[in-house]
Amino acid sequence: MASTARVKEILSWYPSDNAGVKTNLSRLLNTGRLAGTGKLVILPVDQGFEHGPDRSFGPNPPAFDPDYHYQLAVEAGCNAYAAPLGFLEATAGKFAGEVPLILKLNNSDLLEEVEPRSAITSSVKDAVRLGCTAVGYTIYPGSKERNATFQDLRDIIREAKEYGLPTVLWAYPRGSGIPKTSEQAVDVIAYAAQISAQMGAHVIKVKPPNATVHTKEAKAVYEKAGTKLETLADRVRVVTRAAFNGHRIVIFSGGEAKDTASVLEDVKQIAAGGGFGSIMGRNSFQRPKADAIQLLSQVMEAFASK
Amino acid sequence: MASTARVKEILSWYPSDNAGVKTNLSRLLNTGRLAGTGKLVILPVDQGFEHGPDRSFGPNPPAFDPDYHYQLAVEAGCNAYAAPLGFLEATAGKFAGEVPLILKLNNSDLLEEVEPRSAITSSVKDAVRLGCTAVGYTIYPGSKERNATFQDLRDIIREAKEYGLPTVLWAYPRGSGIPKTSEQAVDVIAYAAQISAQMGAHVIKVKPPNATVHTKEAKAVYEKAGTKLETLADRVRVVTRAAFNGHRIVIFSGGEAKDTASVLEDVKQIAAGGGFGSIMGRNSFQRPKADAIQLLSQVMEAFASK
Amino acid sequence: MASTARVKEILSWYPSDNAGVKTNLSRLLNTGRLAGTGKLVILPVDQGFEHGPDRSFGPNPPAFDPDYHYQLAVEAGCNAYAAPLGFLEATAGKFAGEVPLILKLNNSDLLEEVEPRSAITSSVKDAVRLGCTAVGYTIYPGSKERNATFQDLRDIIREAKEYGLPTVLWAYPRGSGIPKTSEQAVDVIAYAAQISAQMGAHVIKVKPPNATVHTKEAKAVYEKAGTKLETLADRVRVVTRAAFNGHRIVIFSGGEAKDTASVLEDVKQIAAGGGFGSIMGRNSFQRPKADAIQLLSQVMEAFASK
Amino acid sequence: MASTARVKEILSWYPSDNAGVKTNLSRLLNTGRLAGTGKLVILPVDQGFEHGPDRSFGPNPPAFDPDYHYQLAVEAGCNAYAAPLGFLEATAGKFAGEVPLILKLNNSDLLEEVEPRSAITSSVKDAVRLGCTAVGYTIYPGSKERNATFQDLRDIIREAKEYGLPTVLWAYPRGSGIPKTSEQAVDVIAYAAQISAQMGAHVIKVKPPNATVHTKEAKAVYEKAGTKLETLADRVRVVTRAAFNGHRIVIFSGGEAKDTASVLEDVKQIAAGGGFGSIMGRNSFQRPKADAIQLLSQVMEAFASK
Amino acid sequence: MASTARVKEILSWYPSDNAGVKTNLSRLLNTGRLAGTGKLVILPVDQGFEHGPDRSFGPNPPAFDPDYHYQLAVEAGCNAYAAPLGFLEATAGKFAGEVPLILKLNNSDLLEEVEPRSAITSSVKDAVRLGCTAVGYTIYPGSKERNATFQDLRDIIREAKEYGLPTVLWAYPRGSGIPKTSEQAVDVIAYAAQISAQMGAHVIKVKPPNATVHTKEAKAVYEKAGTKLETLADRVRVVTRAAFNGHRIVIFSGGEAKDTASVLEDVKQIAAGGGFGSIMGRNSFQRPKADAIQLLSQVMEAFASK
Repeated sequence: MASTARVKEILSWYPSDNAGVKTNLSRLLNTGRLAGTGKLVILPVDQGFEHGPDRSFGPNPPAFDPDYHYQLAVEAGCNAYAAPLGFLEATAGKFAGEVPLILKLNNSDLLEEVEPRSAITSSVKDAVRLGCTAVGYTIYPGSKERNATFQDLRDIIREAKEYGLPTVLWAYPRGSGIPKTSEQAVDVIAYAAQISAQMGAHVIKVKPPNATVHTKEAKAVYEKAGTKLETLADRVRVVTRAAFNGHRIVIFSGGEAKDTASVLEDVKQIAAGGGFGSIMGRNSFQRPKADAIQLLSQVMEAFASK
Repeated sequence: MASTARVKEILSWYPSDNAGVKTNLSRLLNTGRLAGTGKLVILPVDQGFEHGPDRSFGPNPPAFDPDYHYQLAVEAGCNAYAAPLGFLEATAGKFAGEVPLILKLNNSDLLEEVEPRSAITSSVKDAVRLGCTAVGYTIYPGSKERNATFQDLRDIIREAKEYGLPTVLWAYPRGSGIPKTSEQAVDVIAYAAQISAQMGAHVIKVKPPNATVHTKEAKAVYEKAGTKLETLADRVRVVTRAAFNGHRIVIFSGGEAKDTASVLEDVKQIAAGGGFGSIMGRNSFQRPKADAIQLLSQVMEAFASK
Repeated sequence: MASTARVKEILSWYPSDNAGVKTNLSRLLNTGRLAGTGKLVILPVDQGFEHGPDRSFGPNPPAFDPDYHYQLAVEAGCNAYAAPLGFLEATAGKFAGEVPLILKLNNSDLLEEVEPRSAITSSVKDAVRLGCTAVGYTIYPGSKERNATFQDLRDIIREAKEYGLPTVLWAYPRGSGIPKTSEQAVDVIAYAAQISAQMGAHVIKVKPPNATVHTKEAKAVYEKAGTKLETLADRVRVVTRAAFNGHRIVIFSGGEAKDTASVLEDVKQIAAGGGFGSIMGRNSFQRPKADAIQLLSQVMEAFASK
Repeated sequence: MASTARVKEILSWYPSDNAGVKTNLSRLLNTGRLAGTGKLVILPVDQGFEHGPDRSFGPNPPAFDPDYHYQLAVEAGCNAYAAPLGFLEATAGKFAGEVPLILKLNNSDLLEEVEPRSAITSSVKDAVRLGCTAVGYTIYPGSKERNATFQDLRDIIREAKEYGLPTVLWAYPRGSGIPKTSEQAVDVIAYAAQISAQMGAHVIKVKPPNATVHTKEAKAVYEKAGTKLETLADRVRVVTRAAFNGHRIVIFSGGEAKDTASVLEDVKQIAAGGGFGSIMGRNSFQRPKADAIQLLSQVMEAFASK
Repeated sequence: MASTARVKEILSWYPSDNAGVKTNLSRLLNTGRLAGTGKLVILPVDQGFEHGPDRSFGPNPPAFDPDYHYQLAVEAGCNAYAAPLGFLEATAGKFAGEVPLILKLNNSDLLEEVEPRSAITSSVKDAVRLGCTAVGYTIYPGSKERNATFQDLRDIIREAKEYGLPTVLWAYPRGSGIPKTSEQAVDVIAYAAQISAQMGAHVIKVKPPNATVHTKEAKAVYEKAGTKLETLADRVRVVTRAAFNGHRIVIFSGGEAKDTASVLEDVKQIAAGGGFGSIMGRNSFQRPKADAIQLLSQVMEAFASK
């Protein structure tokens, strides 16, 4: 499909990238029910690895099957489906191209708690071999393992670019430098978004920021400028501003499974604040498939109407 | 031999793998007395390294000889024989192709107890040079050394695929994150199977799960869904479900040497629960050869009859 | 433009470098309002990463936009603009060559305090791909991480030379070996300049030295020789002398944002003491653009008149 | 010379090795006074590095000279001479081929006590360049540094095979996992021999086992089977059995310098127990040369007569 | 110039080295006022990095200039000039071949005290690019960082040989394994010389040994053999003996700056004991140039007259 003016505008924010990366970015933006709007809804399914299989898929047992998620992403009209190697190995060669795939290159599990740093579990070349449209990677700003994680990311972004693949970055502030209560503080989430953008991420995924302000320096700046932080929309504005004044694609996760009304209210706030979309895992695959498709459809409408 | 419908079905679960990997998977499935059934009985002999030679082979001294194990695997009609480099160096060039070989690429010994992480003792290229059909590797989910171990595995799986070799993963939850009493907890074993599948293992080897449930989250899910955990068969069902809804080959170890009736009872439960087979070391090579062949034969019958 | 006698003299201090490196050094020296004078004023903008976006750009919100800084450097007539990967990705391909770029290859953030060592966040090849004129790198003499940092620098300088790129080194004494009160001690800054020059840096950036003397050995030498340390100019003389008797380009940072008069007084002292220029971030981009251009203009005049 | 039946039998135990490795193994077996017998006496001189020069060579000062040892090995009719890089650099190009050389690739010194792990001090390519017949390497089973040491060994064995060089492994159980009193326990030495063989060593060098049994599991096995451990010959039998039922070449060190009668008694026991030979450093080079040649001659006779 | 008989004899001690290495060794031996004598006086200037610039060059300010040292080495008729990368970058391309250069590949600074291990600050390829005649490297026997340092050295020696460059090794026993008072103990210095020779160094630089004996084993050997240790000449004899019975080039440093008479007395003792020369930094460049040239001239005479 021909790119819309909005998609062309978004692509113009990446002037130093090669044609391959821009082509795959446009594939993400030109797929599914939100194609052409500049908004994205992505289905991520790494919880089997990150939280364990029973806890993740037990509430909706068909979700134990890799096919289930690929098909859910297609049927719901998502822009992309993101998962670790195993789930993509089990489906990419079978369905071959029905939805853009994002290979999550690193993962953690809950069987041992260490200073946050995910293990690298697959490679850029795996993503190429599986026909993926982008690679995904998780960083934990605030972790003592920062340097190693950032340096691995640097190598991944560089290699991915060589294959024309953009990088989607999951940025979760966490670790010994950040108290639990500040992990979603608005200034911390904004800082994480800035780091992600400076590292060269093409798409940045953060958690919805809350009204906590972690650092006194940011607090002083907000107060002096009269920055509004009351609503989620206000705070999403602060975060997208931190991502190159809105010139990087920032999407927000849904967090823990919750009721439909709450999910939709969050989404509307995110859209109102200038967020580029949502990435919604547990709220999708832990419901019966028909319910999930309906919810995702409502989420997409919320973004499309902005 | 032409592949049976069941073997073809199993191979269809690996749609993204190249023809070389699928060919070697089919060799594993089309060898020995269980050829074509989709079930496997594998002889593994790494205990000389892992537990020490006298303790492992002293009870049946002919087992000190590398030839003994290769020949036992052939005579018993096993699907494959798995061992560290030295045992395969001593036999592969002599017998040359009488049974599929799995080269165990990493090993631990008991002379020093460290946070669980096996040393890499051989390479994918060694497996190729020795004519092996697959490579084997051990992970310890729950160990603080998780990241390094997973990342080495990632490189190994990738390199093995380039040579058309599938990967058999030994997954033992163990380490500072997991109390001794939870090492065979059903949810922990299921989690280990999920991690293994997500990492891209083709065949997954776990210990038989017991009725312990380690995490409250899994407990809640089991209770809500009324998941049965009483029999070993019940629990094997939970574990194979965690391995992509039964679409990855999961086999179970026998554990410590014990009497024949107990071994066979376990095997029947494993078969009833949907397990794909057994991997049986000490219960095989610590008996006189004739007894071992008889026991393995009974085990194979138990699986064949399912 | 033809190089002036002064530029030719400066280039003669780098007799072992290849023509590519000398060409790019001459580009730095032959650009902007100070072209040909042998002096440099550089705009560095890594504070979004190093201190956080709100704290850095909140005081002057247009500065959230990557375009802002590139254009500020051009309009103010700076010799170069230095920034991390993301800011250069967002502008290099759009403006393409309006001002020499320096890619900062490593960065720290404030979300976790570790023994000082910046993460490598981009590469020499990125600098080449983005059309940069030099690479930048930060070392922390006094840190326990010294060896790893120095060795990474070694590799970077070597690779940069292969591509004809000079290296600009940010040298901040900091870490468990140096008390906070000695971080800008004149002998410590001089030592950092010497290390930088011996490592092969082409341009060295240090903080303005204060009158503290950290080591008794340096104190004895200063006293015996009657070395003057009273004014900033005196101390700048000690520092440039430590950089190969003035035969390496040493520039000074402005430090925290402060009032115009203070900034200009510092600059005059630096110029009087033989400093080659200033690198001025927060004092530039945290003011309204017109004010920043005016200040930078005054700074440049101070250097040009020397 | 044509290989004897015994040499051919020994070579048959390495069926997976290439012709180059077998050729060099046959060179070791077909050199010196024991040529063709399947027995080996090797002169190792790494004590200058491992214990210090004065302590090692002071008792017989001509031994400070590298030429001395090479010539001693030739004149005594040893199968091979093993030493670190420096000693071989100083002699290999001068004498060129008068005796097979084994380059010791790693070494420790006594100036600092760390958890046992030798530094890699030369490479397989050095061995090739110096015309060596084999490479040597030391492992310390029981050390916390096990994994790194084993993994380096793995790479070395693989690279050595590519050049047709067999690997001689010095296996010394030592480290925080093993009390001093168990370092020569028979079950521990047997375990070290097994590990060495499983890692792919072609020749294994251990210390003579004493009658201590370190693990209760081995003790139980020995008692149940009535394994004799009284004489050194008995214990050598247990150790060679652990090395693939006698199908790997296992040689024994002499240990500290002692009187001739004790040395010869040990050697006779080793020969009686099925040991393949001795490696004798201090007992050789700390005597006057004529005495050393006489002793080595008696040692060789003891092995030849078996 | 044609090599003298003595130079030919010295070169004969390196029979396994390629022609390139021997050619560069002969350049070191055939340069300056001591050309052809088999003796060497080298000017080393790494103190700016190792001790700081003011402390090192402040006593004689012209020494802040890189040109100063290169010219001092030429005018004094030294065999070679050794320095870190920066000093050689600043001069090698300007003077081009007036004196053999030795690039010091690793360096430490005093801003942080860590277990002794120098950072690698330049490479063999830098030495080649700068037209150097040899590379230099520092080891600290006795440091817990021994293994990493030795292994880096191994790689450097190997790479240097490929380019025909000999290696000059600075061996300073130091670290947690050695009390301060034993750092120049004669047995410890002898041990360091042995390690250096075994690692493959072509030229070994140690500090002058004092009469302390650190280990009881060496003490016993010295006493039994009646080894004389009273004079520096006696002790130099013990050290050169430890370096392959005098068949490796061992040179001695002067240590801290001191008066001319003391320097010359040391040098005469070193020469009398069979030392191959001196390496003299602070005693050279901290005096006025004319004085330094006179002193070096006297030092050379002392060696030439032996």
